[in-house]
Parts: sequence; structure tokens; C-alpha cells
Amino acid sequence: MLFNIFQKDFYNGIQIVEKAVSSKSTMTILTGIYIEAILDKGIHLIANNLEIGIEYWLDAEIKEEGAIVLPAVQLTNIIRELPAADVLFKADMEHFNVNINCLNSEFNIKGFEADEFPQLPEIKGSYSLKVPSLNYKEMIDEVKFATSNDQTQPALTGGLMSINDNSINLVTTNTYRLAFSKINNTSSIDQNINVILPGNTLNELSHLIDNDNNNSEDLTMLISENYIRFNFNDIVFISRLIEGKFPNYQQVLPDSSNTKVKIDRTEFSKAVKRVSLIARHDTNVVTLIINQNWMDIKSNKSDIGNAHETIEIELEGDTQKIDVDANYLMDVLKVLKEDTIVIELIGSLNPLTIKKQINGDYIYLIMPVRPGA
Amino acid sequence: MLFNIFQKDFYNGIQIVEKAVSSKSTMTILTGIYIEAILDKGIHLIANNLEIGIEYWLDAEIKEEGAIVLPAVQLTNIIRELPAADVLFKADMEHFNVNINCLNSEFNIKGFEADEFPQLPEIKGSYSLKVPSLNYKEMIDEVKFATSNDQTQPALTGGLMSINDNSINLVTTNTYRLAFSKINNTSSIDQNINVILPGNTLNELSHLIDNDNNNSEDLTMLISENYIRFNFNDIVFISRLIEGKFPNYQQVLPDSSNTKVKIDRTEFSKAVKRVSLIARHDTNVVTLIINQNWMDIKSNKSDIGNAHETIEIELEGDTQKIDVDANYLMDVLKVLKEDTIVIELIGSLNPLTIKKQINGDYIYLIMPVRPGA
Repeated sequence: MLFNIFQKDFYNGIQIVEKAVSSKSTMTILTGIYIEAILDKGIHLIANNLEIGIEYWLDAEIKEEGAIVLPAVQLTNIIRELPAADVLFKADMEHFNVNINCLNSEFNIKGFEADEFPQLPEIKGSYSLKVPSLNYKEMIDEVKFATSNDQTQPALTGGLMSINDNSINLVTTNTYRLAFSKINNTSSIDQNINVILPGNTLNELSHLIDNDNNNSEDLTMLISENYIRFNFNDIVFISRLIEGKFPNYQQVLPDSSNTKVKIDRTEFSKAVKRVSLIARHDTNVVTLIINQNWMDIKSNKSDIGNAHETIEIELEGDTQKIDVDANYLMDVLKVLKEDTIVIELIGSLNPLTIKKQINGDYIYLIMPVRPGA
Repeated sequence: MLFNIFQKDFYNGIQIVEKAVSSKSTMTILTGIYIEAILDKGIHLIANNLEIGIEYWLDAEIKEEGAIVLPAVQLTNIIRELPAADVLFKADMEHFNVNINCLNSEFNIKGFEADEFPQLPEIKGSYSLKVPSLNYKEMIDEVKFATSNDQTQPALTGGLMSINDNSINLVTTNTYRLAFSKINNTSSIDQNINVILPGNTLNELSHLIDNDNNNSEDLTMLISENYIRFNFNDIVFISRLIEGKFPNYQQVLPDSSNTKVKIDRTEFSKAVKRVSLIARHDTNVVTLIINQNWMDIKSNKSDIGNAHETIEIELEGDTQKIDVDANYLMDVLKVLKEDTIVIELIGSLNPLTIKKQINGDYIYLIMPVRPGA
């Protein structure tokens, strides 16, 4: 096995598949990256932690074919630190030793037999869809922060993707808050699909779509019973699906409100952040008081002091007073991009919802904290 | 107590004195910042953790005089997050409550009685010196990383500043390595001075001199038996001195060598970093082999592999082979600014020294690792 590759290209490829390397595995080989050189095709990189698997193809000058697995930590560190020049990669296929040469640098690293590396599952997909990758990424970003950390309810640690003929919906909730986002579906499917994607899959997909320079392309999905496969910009991303039942979120979404507030997102975000500096440490609760033309935001921590902010709003409907977790507010205010957002309320014991001003494709819902709780 | 101050100015002052705030103190008041408003003078900020104390003066529009202590964490967070506008600071001197107003933001925080704040020690100094602050900072930076972390030998956790009629010398060592730097002394003194500055004092002084925009000014020092006071750019910085005996470092500095090597600092630094990626994990040892026109740098970790770099050098004297800690090399190569540095050797069991090519005002010494150790 022998090939020549430019250092920056090699490092770029390693960084992409690295996200799927197992950090602490009982199978040592999963802490490695699979590297295969194929004549006329290039270098094939694979990492697989059994939840996520990533494949990537690199252009390289292949002189001898072969495959080997190298420990990811050493490989990443070495290729990152090499000078920006041609790297000669030579593997002794009998003893699985790899020799890496670049200008005046030479490394010998022990590898593993490529045959022992677990192949990525083959997705015998019943459903195939195509969406613009940037839209898909935006949908993920608008909900991924609202997953649960509670491992005893695995379904809530992921996001429910439900697909019908018109739309692709993604929902996350930890039962105290819920985020819902929706994009158009132009692929035709013959029945509704409901799958739960792991939280880590949402995070890594978002990173990888971001890191790419050519985001105008489409992303394609292939969905089977236990796995989903994403293809975008020469990356193949395979994820296990979470088994289990996702709560019936539609039940929770309010279908009407008594109060609609238009507010500047950036001003609101800064004010909540300041007021939360003096909030009850355990729950970080702030009180929103909605008056005719302005909102008061208040907090009080008996041993420290109190804080008070005032912001202009546009009110439609009743005045209100509600206690909410400041962190839940700040999370969504950071992610949305709209200058003006809409807050809807029913009463102090009902959920508060945040929507975009323009369309109804996004709903964020926060359960109130009971006054005095 | 009542004053008006621009948010950015107030925050800048807080950031300067904050370095001397106690993070975990049995005296709660030391976790606060002392704020005094004096007519025609401005705002006086003080923090004091009993090892370091910092005073700073700020311009402000004083309306009523007074002094109070506020918890540093809350004060810093609040002033940092306020909009860039005028801040009205009002203290109720009876109940030690402070009201902070800025545009639509209002905070009430509980403070402490100013009288309870321990005054900074008065330095009845016998010795006063003046040096250009940037030179003093450079001297600190060249040695501060080589202090010891061993709290059972307090003297080694600091730096020995020894002053004679010609020069100010600063030395640090952990007994495995030593850093020595020297600047000119133009102040006349009637006897040699030897004091040990705490490691933390060296770090914070370096930061504060750096953060300042107007570095062309002089720094003045006033030294007493137990304390040292630095004045620079409106900052007063007081530090306790470490009691104890610093080892006789002059004994250790070699007065001759068998080998002199001129080497490119950046190339050497990158090569050592790469080779150390595959070095014995516990000690991070690399082998330097000095030949006629080049240096080989090698490492070997039996279960991972090995690494080898080659760099051009200019040799004067004998060829050599020596084992050293790669971290000790990288520390100094990061700090020096010279393109070319000089390495001097006696033999594989004697210390290796690194000097600047031009002058003899800097010496860095590393004890070798015994081969096979």
C-alpha cells in the first residue's frame, strides 16, 4: 500500500471522519481510522463507533493498493503538525506498520489489520428523500439544543423526524420545553415516516454541513428500520436510529392564545442575560411582566439583590405575568436569526411559545415555573 | 455615595483590580472589590487577596463621596453585560445597598461595609528602582514558565530577583531546569538586593503590563522586607515576598562548553513538537543527535511507533547525543523571539543550555534525562 497526498487534503479528510471515531471502546480497532487506497478512485476513509459511521473519499496519487487501520489520535496529531507539503504514506501489509514521510519528517506507526474493522451497515432503504442541505441544517440547529440528557428515556435524548407528503418535521423535548421545526418535502413518499435520530447525530450532522464550502448542494437520505444514511458533499453519514416511543407532541402545542407580543430579539436576549445574573441559582427563574407597551423582566435572589429591565413591545391581547427559566429563553434567542420574534401566552400556568414573525414553521414552547416554586 | 461613569471605563478598571480578588477566602469581604468615590479625584478601586493587592484610579463624575465593597463576581458580570452607556452608581451608606442604573437596566446588590476591607500594607521601602516596563515584562516572560509547582519548597514556586548596581536578574528553577534573564539597572543602590517574587505575581504583572496601551512608560519598584510595590500606568501592584532560601543558581551555570549549535528556532520548535507526538508518555523524552551539519531528533514509544526529524544546523565543536524532556524544550522555544538560537553542550550527562544568538543576558538550562531512564 503506497500513496502520495497533499498534507492539507489528508488532514481535511481525517477531520471529517474523526467525528465517528470511538473515544473509549472495548473494541480497540474502533478507536482507529480505516484507510484504503484504490487505483483510479483515491483514498477511502471510514470511522465507525457503532452509533455513527462516516465515509469520505479523497483524491490521491495511488501507487499500490491496500487497506489498513491506524489509531485516530496519533494519525490526527501527526498529519495536523506536518508541514504543508506532499505526504508519502507507505504500509507494510505483512506487519501492519505504516511509514509516513513528509520533507524532513518521518513517522513509523503500528496499525491494525483492515479486515478486522467492522463494516458500516448496509442500508436497505425503503425511503429515499432529497432536501437542500442548508435548509436541513437550519432545521437541526433550531431544535438540537432542546433534547433531554436523561438516559433513562432514550427517545427524548434524540429528535423525532416525522415526514409526510408535504413536510419534514423535527421535534425535540425534555418535557419542560419543546422545539419544533419544519421544512418542505418535495420527494413523494407513500406513507408517513417517524424515526428518532440520536442527539449526537444531530450535532455532528450540523457541524459537517457547516464545515463544507459548497452548501448549495442537496442532501439525500435513505431510511431503513434501524438506520438512516445521509449523503452530502462526498460525505456518507450513517446513524443508528433510537428505538422507543416519542411523546405525542402535537397534543402539547396550544392552538390559540390570549396574548401576542412582538419584541426585538437581540434586545430581549441581552436583557434576559443581564437579569439572569441575579436569579435564583438553582432554577435561574426570571419573571416576565407584559404591560401595554413594554415588558418588565425581573429577578430576585434574596442574599445577593435584584435586577430589573424594561423593553418596548407591541402587545395584542391581555397583559400577563409569567415565571420562566432564563436559560430556556436564552437558548432559543441565540439560535433564531429574525430581528423580531413573537411570544404567545395563555396565562401564567400555561406554556409560553416563541415563534418567528413571518412563518409558522417554527414553534418553541416553555413550561412556566409555578410562582414561588 | 453617587457617581456617573462610562460603562467601558468602569469595566476596564474592574478587570485590572479583579486579578487580586480572592476566589475562595475565609474572609468573605476579600471576594469583593473596594470602591471609593472621592471628589475631584475620581473612583478608587482596590482588591486584595493578602498575597497580591491591586489599586487603580478611574475618572468619573462624583456627586457624593463614599466607599463600599461589592461582591466581585456579581459586579464584574453586571458591568460587563451592560450596554455601552453612562452608568449611575448609587450606594445607600446605611444599609450598604447599591443601585446601578444604565439605560433600561437596574440592579440592586448587597454590599459590605468599606471599613471592614483590609487596607493594603504600607511599604516602608528602603529601595526604589525605575525600569522601562516593557523590558521588565520581557524579562518576566522569559523565566516565569520555569517555576516549580512543588508547594513543599515555597522558594522554588517563585522567581529570585537579585539586583546589583549594574543589573536586575530574574531566575526560576524546578531543579530539573532553570531560566535566567537580565536587564540593565540604571538606579543606584548601596547594596545588593535579593527577593523572591511569587509565581502568581510574575504571571499577573506580565498580564497587566501587556494589557496596557501605553507601554513606553517606566515601572517603579519599592522594596521592603516583606513586600514589593510596583507602580506603572496608574496601577499600584503590591505583592508579598516569599521567605526562604533560593538555591545558589550560579553554581549550576556551566562556564564552558564542548559544542555550540546554531539552529533555526521555529524549525526546531516544530520538529520537537512533531517528534514528541510519539514520545514516552510519562516523561516525553526525545533524543537529540548532533552531527556535523544536521541534528537528528528521535523518539520511540514501543507500543505506538517512532518518529524522526532532521534539521540543518551550524556546528562548532564535538558531535553529541543527549536525551531531554520535549516539553522543557518547547516551553522556551515558544517564548524566545529570535530567529536563530544557540544550544551549548558539554556531554550527554551534563546540562544543555539555550542562549540567544546576540547577547548573554539569557540562559536556559535543562538537565538531561539519563539514557534508558
